[in-house]
Amino acid sequence: MKFISIVMGSKSDYEVMKSCSETLEAFGVSYEMIVSSAHRSPERTASYIQEAEKKGAQCFIAAAGMAAHLAGVLSSKTVKPIIGVPMSASALGGIDALLSTVQMPAGMPVATVAIGKAGAINSAYLAMQILALNNEELATKLKEDRVSKAKKVETDSLEIETIISA
Amino acid sequence: MKFISIVMGSKSDYEVMKSCSETLEAFGVSYEMIVSSAHRSPERTASYIQEAEKKGAQCFIAAAGMAAHLAGVLSSKTVKPIIGVPMSASALGGIDALLSTVQMPAGMPVATVAIGKAGAINSAYLAMQILALNNEELATKLKEDRVSKAKKVETDSLEIETIISA
Amino acid sequence: MKFISIVMGSKSDYEVMKSCSETLEAFGVSYEMIVSSAHRSPERTASYIQEAEKKGAQCFIAAAGMAAHLAGVLSSKTVKPIIGVPMSASALGGIDALLSTVQMPAGMPVATVAIGKAGAINSAYLAMQILALNNEELATKLKEDRVSKAKKVETDSLEIETIISA
Amino acid sequence: MKFISIVMGSKSDYEVMKSCSETLEAFGVSYEMIVSSAHRSPERTASYIQEAEKKGAQCFIAAAGMAAHLAGVLSSKTVKPIIGVPMSASALGGIDALLSTVQMPAGMPVATVAIGKAGAINSAYLAMQILALNNEELATKLKEDRVSKAKKVETDSLEIETIISA
Amino acid sequence: MKFISIVMGSKSDYEVMKSCSETLEAFGVSYEMIVSSAHRSPERTASYIQEAEKKGAQCFIAAAGMAAHLAGVLSSKTVKPIIGVPMSASALGGIDALLSTVQMPAGMPVATVAIGKAGAINSAYLAMQILALNNEELATKLKEDRVSKAKKVETDSLEIETIISA
Amino acid sequence: MKFISIVMGSKSDYEVMKSCSETLEAFGVSYEMIVSSAHRSPERTASYIQEAEKKGAQCFIAAAGMAAHLAGVLSSKTVKPIIGVPMSASALGGIDALLSTVQMPAGMPVATVAIGKAGAINSAYLAMQILALNNEELATKLKEDRVSKAKKVETDSLEIETIISA
Amino acid sequence: MKFISIVMGSKSDYEVMKSCSETLEAFGVSYEMIVSSAHRSPERTASYIQEAEKKGAQCFIAAAGMAAHLAGVLSSKTVKPIIGVPMSASALGGIDALLSTVQMPAGMPVATVAIGKAGAINSAYLAMQILALNNEELATKLKEDRVSKAKKVETDSLEIETIISA
Amino acid sequence: MKFISIVMGSKSDYEVMKSCSETLEAFGVSYEMIVSSAHRSPERTASYIQEAEKKGAQCFIAAAGMAAHLAGVLSSKTVKPIIGVPMSASALGGIDALLSTVQMPAGMPVATVAIGKAGAINSAYLAMQILALNNEELATKLKEDRVSKAKKVETDSLEIETIISA
Repeated sequence: MKFISIVMGSKSDYEVMKSCSETLEAFGVSYEMIVSSAHRSPERTASYIQEAEKKGAQCFIAAAGMAAHLAGVLSSKTVKPIIGVPMSASALGGIDALLSTVQMPAGMPVATVAIGKAGAINSAYLAMQILALNNEELATKLKEDRVSKAKKVETDSLEIETIISA
Repeated sequence: MKFISIVMGSKSDYEVMKSCSETLEAFGVSYEMIVSSAHRSPERTASYIQEAEKKGAQCFIAAAGMAAHLAGVLSSKTVKPIIGVPMSASALGGIDALLSTVQMPAGMPVATVAIGKAGAINSAYLAMQILALNNEELATKLKEDRVSKAKKVETDSLEIETIISA
Repeated sequence: MKFISIVMGSKSDYEVMKSCSETLEAFGVSYEMIVSSAHRSPERTASYIQEAEKKGAQCFIAAAGMAAHLAGVLSSKTVKPIIGVPMSASALGGIDALLSTVQMPAGMPVATVAIGKAGAINSAYLAMQILALNNEELATKLKEDRVSKAKKVETDSLEIETIISA
Repeated sequence: MKFISIVMGSKSDYEVMKSCSETLEAFGVSYEMIVSSAHRSPERTASYIQEAEKKGAQCFIAAAGMAAHLAGVLSSKTVKPIIGVPMSASALGGIDALLSTVQMPAGMPVATVAIGKAGAINSAYLAMQILALNNEELATKLKEDRVSKAKKVETDSLEIETIISA
Repeated sequence: MKFISIVMGSKSDYEVMKSCSETLEAFGVSYEMIVSSAHRSPERTASYIQEAEKKGAQCFIAAAGMAAHLAGVLSSKTVKPIIGVPMSASALGGIDALLSTVQMPAGMPVATVAIGKAGAINSAYLAMQILALNNEELATKLKEDRVSKAKKVETDSLEIETIISA
Repeated sequence: MKFISIVMGSKSDYEVMKSCSETLEAFGVSYEMIVSSAHRSPERTASYIQEAEKKGAQCFIAAAGMAAHLAGVLSSKTVKPIIGVPMSASALGGIDALLSTVQMPAGMPVATVAIGKAGAINSAYLAMQILALNNEELATKLKEDRVSKAKKVETDSLEIETIISA
Repeated sequence: MKFISIVMGSKSDYEVMKSCSETLEAFGVSYEMIVSSAHRSPERTASYIQEAEKKGAQCFIAAAGMAAHLAGVLSSKTVKPIIGVPMSASALGGIDALLSTVQMPAGMPVATVAIGKAGAINSAYLAMQILALNNEELATKLKEDRVSKAKKVETDSLEIETIISA
Repeated sequence: MKFISIVMGSKSDYEVMKSCSETLEAFGVSYEMIVSSAHRSPERTASYIQEAEKKGAQCFIAAAGMAAHLAGVLSSKTVKPIIGVPMSASALGGIDALLSTVQMPAGMPVATVAIGKAGAINSAYLAMQILALNNEELATKLKEDRVSKAKKVETDSLEIETIISA
């Protein structure tokens, strides 16, 4: 069974990362979501990756804040794609987590998305785009989502245009 | 035929992005590499994406500097995964291109990698990791590459240790 | 009919951008305000520019946050002046949107103003300054506005001076 | 006679700003270029603006580095559009000049372009886009320039494609 | 009569800058406090400096946010010492005002202090240190203030030590 | 008697730094906590270091915000290890205190930890790691703490997994 | 005898700080220039301040890079005005030294000038402006300098205008 | 046998990190220096820590650039003190490595020192200060070093004073 694995460095990341799982659910994509820390539970993290890969994990989404090493640690343990979501967990607004996630050395990529909630949602979309390369049904859903997003823009615009002309 | 499409916003990006194409070549992965700008040639960019997708492009790698919109523009035109490589093309050291590439709004992900050469190489690795989800041979090569990278670290270490003990 | 076109990347930008439309209204300048996204509705954005130009749009004001590509996308589709307003829409305080808007490559300018509300108001002033090059009446109003602003400073000062001497 | 006025805060800015004047020349647009400092020659700056406006200056382009106040000072003296070019003149890579130029208070806009050479060129393009609102011939030239820029991208791409296939 | 002149770019700066005037008052130092903007009331600013100098202003304290040009503009009009207080008036936390105030070109100094309230207080202290060079009584007060500040640290420490041992 | 000395630059740092003292208490490690400022009470700071060293201080933890000089001043007065905790005490989110603490010149190290509460806790852990080099019992407690932290991650994970499957 | 005291944190700062001493010399202002470090020679620094004050030092100029504590340390030892010059001595371009110098706590001001050479020159000008409050001759020289600076701008401008018209 | 372990993430870090080993050598402190990467050789890194600890490693010094995870990874595997040296290995001047090293979550400290060469030297000093807590001879050497550093400042100062008076 193919699924997406979501790993959060801390329980407190759930408030933001549920946007990720909800997005996957909305598209009917299977996922697994756990808390495991690069630093506080390195063995758990390492053994989880192996198990998850065996069970069918296609991509790993890693969310962490501050010196966000989680995505990089996952990257070093597998050649499956790793998607990193930088959390805004300090007074620096997430720039620490962004740089810690994206500036990976050559050969060890982390597919980094935006800081915080937008990134949480985009990590789900990116994972689905990867799955959709071999899943026509999902690809179709993603294309339909684009159409509905474009329509939503039109509806939003009408709402604003109505306010103004009022 | 499945291949990776590399799009550079400017001819001057080639000096850095040849690290990307050379990495793909080293693994025997097919690719196509063109120059097309989000701003100077928007029609070419739009029509290229459609053609490339039809020809079998699985992922798009987009390299751009400054207000790096190329990856975002590609993202808006396809549901294939887009990998963004921020170039260091101004006096700001590439932080402008990094933020312009990674801070995409919800629903329009760009898989962002490191600024400059490390990112150019990692964009190739990330694209191959995505292909390898359905290509056992490539997956094996990527795992072997990890082994050889780990060995290289040992050789490098011996070199340093020899210098010190001398 | 000559008018100013205001395009917002998201409905949520309206709260800030109404300062722009209200400023234009205060000077009796015609405008049109819509929501259209560079990424979520690229076709709408492209076709809107063409229509708006035909209808008489003189300048486009584009407001967007995060990886703010909207102004750049408009710039690539027309040779009319584009004014970019960076929104503070992430934990980074708008520096992401500022750099994504202002660091445009040679030949594709975006006239960038301040982040957030000050920029929203200034985008209206800048648009009017451009119109005023061929509209003596508007030029006069802008000069009168300067006089009243200078007077307001004096009134404000008296208020403070009164508090202190109390 | 309508012309563009270019004001540089320091003689040393000329090395970068000649890209601005050369761009205007390439399109046959009249301009005047002087050195005048916001701080070292405030009276000269103030009296120059008045004269230049009387002589027909339509837009002012102001280039300055560090605490770049020149564009703001011009903005406070006229309601003509002011275009600010932040120079990279300190160890901070021009972020000081960018923020000093773009973060203008409400009612006093500066149309800010990119740091350094790209900004110097774009200040010329932006000024011409403003003039072109009432100059069909210039508008046509700007549109033709877009076409030739798009063609240049194709030529550049062929060059790279040839290198790769070699 | 010797006094300190405090100029704020906006009425809204008073909330922070009253810490400056209150500090001067606590030491019995004469001051004058007005609102005048570098951009919205340039003539008022210029003529005020001349008058204030004639009346006996020894130092000027200039408080402004965003593209904080006020201190620089004062500096260009007088050879009296100018003290700049960067305000945190945008989403960037005052780094824009700090760089706009401190990065002055050679020959035109602004004595810059900390962002916000600490800076408001320090501008008063710095002004008094300058006056005290020729005012023994004030110098003595400043030295006594140091002693009382050091004592306050001891009292504060005892308070904390008591909490802990409780 | 061996103990850890905690010095805060200001009473207001206590709200954050009590996380440091509470962590030491939880491990039964002796400590002393005072307020002393690098700038407001330099003599007290200097004499305190000497006394504390004589009484058995093994490490000094210094917490300060803004231009955080306290750790550096301590470093210049002793060859005992100094741990610096940057406080977020201005609108810049603590980046000022971080750079003021960590960028020490060669020969004068400050062991810098994270900004704010995470740093306050980590300063305690780092101090205990240093003590534990010669304190087997403490070393054992630190290892047990790692085990319980890893277990806590598992419990946290179960909590989230339960929410999701609900 | 009244003089200006210049203290550099490191011998390597001389290359930049000779612009400061040369400026003072050009105006015939007495000065003393030494190397003394906040961290490497704290006693020397402390005792020097006392001696220098007794000998007639009116202002102290302190130049330092990285975690630039020198100006702050001086500020804590005297109520004479302290001028801080942040040096660009690391890969961060001097932003570390700027924040370490300017973000001083309430009651302990450092008059901070620009990073590097511009700041070195401005520290001399600021010191002279302070002296000139009680030195009519120096005040006159500073005013004449302004006139010659304004003239230099005109000469510079003519040079550029000649190049262009050629 | 007690010794200091130095781990570099890449062979290229040696050019900077030899300042660390040379400092230890100058004080006669035993050390071991290897190359091992957090990402490219995670198993080697993990097994090395265990071995080194058994052999007598007291502290680990970890040097890495970009998304510098090495120190954090070491921290997660041992309760011995970890000293992190951020390398300047990208166009961002080492701010990426600094934040990735210092912003560690609560309970997992990394004693972070300055970016680049100053940090490389300080990592050696900090390690020696830790050892010196139980090594009177080394403590004496460190105190003597402070005396010689203070004398060097005096010699440096005389050199500059001689240049000036010449």
